[in-house]
Formats: sequence, structure tokens, C-alpha cells
Amino acid sequence: MPTLVLIRHGQSAWNLENRFTGWWDVNLTEQGIAEATAAGELMAAKGLDFDQCFTSFQTRAIKTLNLALESMGRLWLPVEKDWRLNERHYGGLTGLDKAETAAKHGDDQVKIWRRSFDIPPPLPEAGSPYDLGNDRRYAGIAVPATESLKDTIARVLPYWEARIVPELKAGKRVLISAHGNSLRALVKHLSGISDADIASLEIPTGQPLVYDLDEALNATDRYYLRDR
Amino acid sequence: MPTLVLIRHGQSAWNLENRFTGWWDVNLTEQGIAEATAAGELMAAKGLDFDQCFTSFQTRAIKTLNLALESMGRLWLPVEKDWRLNERHYGGLTGLDKAETAAKHGDDQVKIWRRSFDIPPPLPEAGSPYDLGNDRRYAGIAVPATESLKDTIARVLPYWEARIVPELKAGKRVLISAHGNSLRALVKHLSGISDADIASLEIPTGQPLVYDLDEALNATDRYYLRDR
Repeated sequence: MPTLVLIRHGQSAWNLENRFTGWWDVNLTEQGIAEATAAGELMAAKGLDFDQCFTSFQTRAIKTLNLALESMGRLWLPVEKDWRLNERHYGGLTGLDKAETAAKHGDDQVKIWRRSFDIPPPLPEAGSPYDLGNDRRYAGIAVPATESLKDTIARVLPYWEARIVPELKAGKRVLISAHGNSLRALVKHLSGISDADIASLEIPTGQPLVYDLDEALNATDRYYLRDR
Repeated sequence: MPTLVLIRHGQSAWNLENRFTGWWDVNLTEQGIAEATAAGELMAAKGLDFDQCFTSFQTRAIKTLNLALESMGRLWLPVEKDWRLNERHYGGLTGLDKAETAAKHGDDQVKIWRRSFDIPPPLPEAGSPYDLGNDRRYAGIAVPATESLKDTIARVLPYWEARIVPELKAGKRVLISAHGNSLRALVKHLSGISDADIASLEIPTGQPLVYDLDEALNATDRYYLRDR
């Protein structure tokens, strides 16, 4: 049966500082590094193995993958990196402290931005220090100015279908290291979670989430590896 | 003009212990990690940038690449890993201390094994702890039992022609992180070094070696980046 494991990157500097991150490229903290290494150790201890890995264009997810692969003795596995697995773009909220943002705009408004399915955060202000227009990793890509979860899903799923599904159908064991919202997109799709419920589904950092799939890639089980 | 940079992995545990390593998968030392990070910093400081990276199936080269890319802010670049960029296979010498081997077999014999062009080291003994027959990274690959430098060149160059030359011809800037002898294969080819001279060409660890190439991929200059 196809194997699919999803892992959200370990704790990042802005997870720790409670700031909206999105496409901004912050690094892992020491704790995040430890989480990633432990995830690889756990996967190896449980006998999981992989043939193909996928990750985003963002350092925190790439490093999480590299650290997990290293602790599994699998640093040599092929890795495909793609911007479509990036975190949701938080637009004008990028870089802001979540508590300060709530104090300024009110808890209800922030909850809408964070947890609604199809309402994107506000656009960035002109001259934002978090503008990615000159970041060459995104050359040729129409970098979104802001994204709702729905927008995020709309670029994750075509990538899933085009690049990941064929590997799974070919019998490859797949590991995906990505982000809270790009993984929500996959979990929503695979587990049939409603628009209303998906945004409140929390995916912890650095915990391998295992999908058992049937031949048609329907999910027959989903669990965190630490629980088995 | 096409850009090509070669980098030999940073110091490994067996570089430090002066043991024959070859295909055995030893890790970087702390010094090796520092060398790799410094290599990336140097490349960034000198304004080098890349579009496509290549490395071997061996941890020390992959980590060197990852560390250099991270310190350049380029961890998101595509990386292709292939066994054909692996170090020369040292056969029955794998794991042996170079000084002890010289004491046992004589300096002249060891010099022949290390520095002749076409004489491979002895075959591994049966039951060698360094047998890679069960290492799944090499599943489907006819792992050599031992390799001369000539043998190494014979698998590096077809890979160069098939996978790396097309990227350079397409205008991609290429970074290759590999090993003393797989890089000798490339340097011999690009710089037209004789069979007699190539084995004594030393490539230091962790030092970016830059090739300026013309459109036909003939080398017009070759230098260590630290010297410019």
C-alpha cells in the first residue's frame, strides 16, 4: 500500500515569537532543530522508510526535512522543492505580533483572518519590509499578495495531483515536509474535512502524521506516529 | 558564460583519522561543518550564485552542499543526488588507517594504490564490515568492489555528459559538491590533465574551485575562490 507521511516544520523563530510568518523565510529555533531530528529518529525506530520527498521553498521546511532524513540515514533520498508547498501567505499581517495585532484590530477580526476559510488577510502596505518581489527564488512566480486558506488549497492541490499522486501511484513511499496551512490543504483533501472545520484543525510542529492509503489513494487511516 | 563551481566536502571523521573512506558513509567533523558553512559565506560574499546543484549519495558531500547553500540563503535550490558522483571505492582498503596500511604493505605499495591511475586497491575480504551490498541506497546499482581512478572517471564522465552538461549549456549556473576523486575526474576532463599527473592533483576540502567556461564548455580559467 502507498505510504504517505506529512510533517510540519519544527518550531521556527517566529512560532516562538508568536508572529505571523507566511512566506517570510525564518529559520528553525534550537527546539525546532531538535524536533526535526527527533522526528527522523521516531520514523526510523518505527520502521518507516521513503523513496521520494517533497518540501517547500522555505528554509524551515527544507531544514526540517534534511534533519529528519539525516537522523534516518536517508539524506541521499531525492527531494523535490516547490513553492506550491509554501505556507499560506499572510499578506499585511506578515511579521506582526499576533497579540499586538489582536489588541489593535480586535480578537474577532484576527480570528477571522486566521481561521476563516476564504477571507484573506489585508494586503501588505506599500514598502513593506516583507515584500518578496526581489527574492530570486520566486522569479517567474506570481507571488500572491495575501492568501486565504482557500487560496492556499488552490495552489497546493494541483501540485499534489501533478507531482505527488503519480509517485504514490507508482508505489513510492512519500514524505512531505511543509507548513501548517499547506498541510491543512492536503489533510482536508485526503480526510474530506469541511470548509468550516479545516481551519481549526491544528497540526503540531515536528510530528510525523501518517496516512494509510488504499490503491486509489483514499485514506483508510490517519494518525500521529507518536501515538502508535 | 556558464558558471561551474566544484567543492570537495569538508573534513570528514575519517579524513581526520587518516583512514581510507571511499564509499563508506562517514559524517563531517565539526571542522568540516565549519568549512562547508564558510564556503557558502565566501561564495555569497564574492557574488556567486547558482541555479542547479549536484551531489553524491554520500552524507559528507550532501551535508557540505546543504550547509553551503544555507549560508548563501539558497537552500531552496534544486539538488540532484547521484551515486556516480561518489568517492572512488577503496575496496579492501576501506576503513584502514593509512599509516598502518603503509607499515603493513610498504609505502611504495600504498602509493601505487593511492596514486596510480589504473591500478585498483585490493578486493575487500569476505565478510568485510564495509560491505554495501545491503545498503538500500545502492539497490539496483552494481556497486563496484574496488575502483582505480580510471574506473571512477569511467562512471563520473557519463553522468557529467548526461546530466550536468545540458544544464550548463542551458545557461544554468552549476554547483557540484563531491569528493576528491570524483572531482579529479571532472578536473582531468575540463583541464586536460594527463593520466600521469591527475592522481597527484590535490583538491583541498571545503574550498570552492571555480571554472570559467566558454560556450563550448572549454575551461578558460580555473581557480580557488579564496585566491581571488
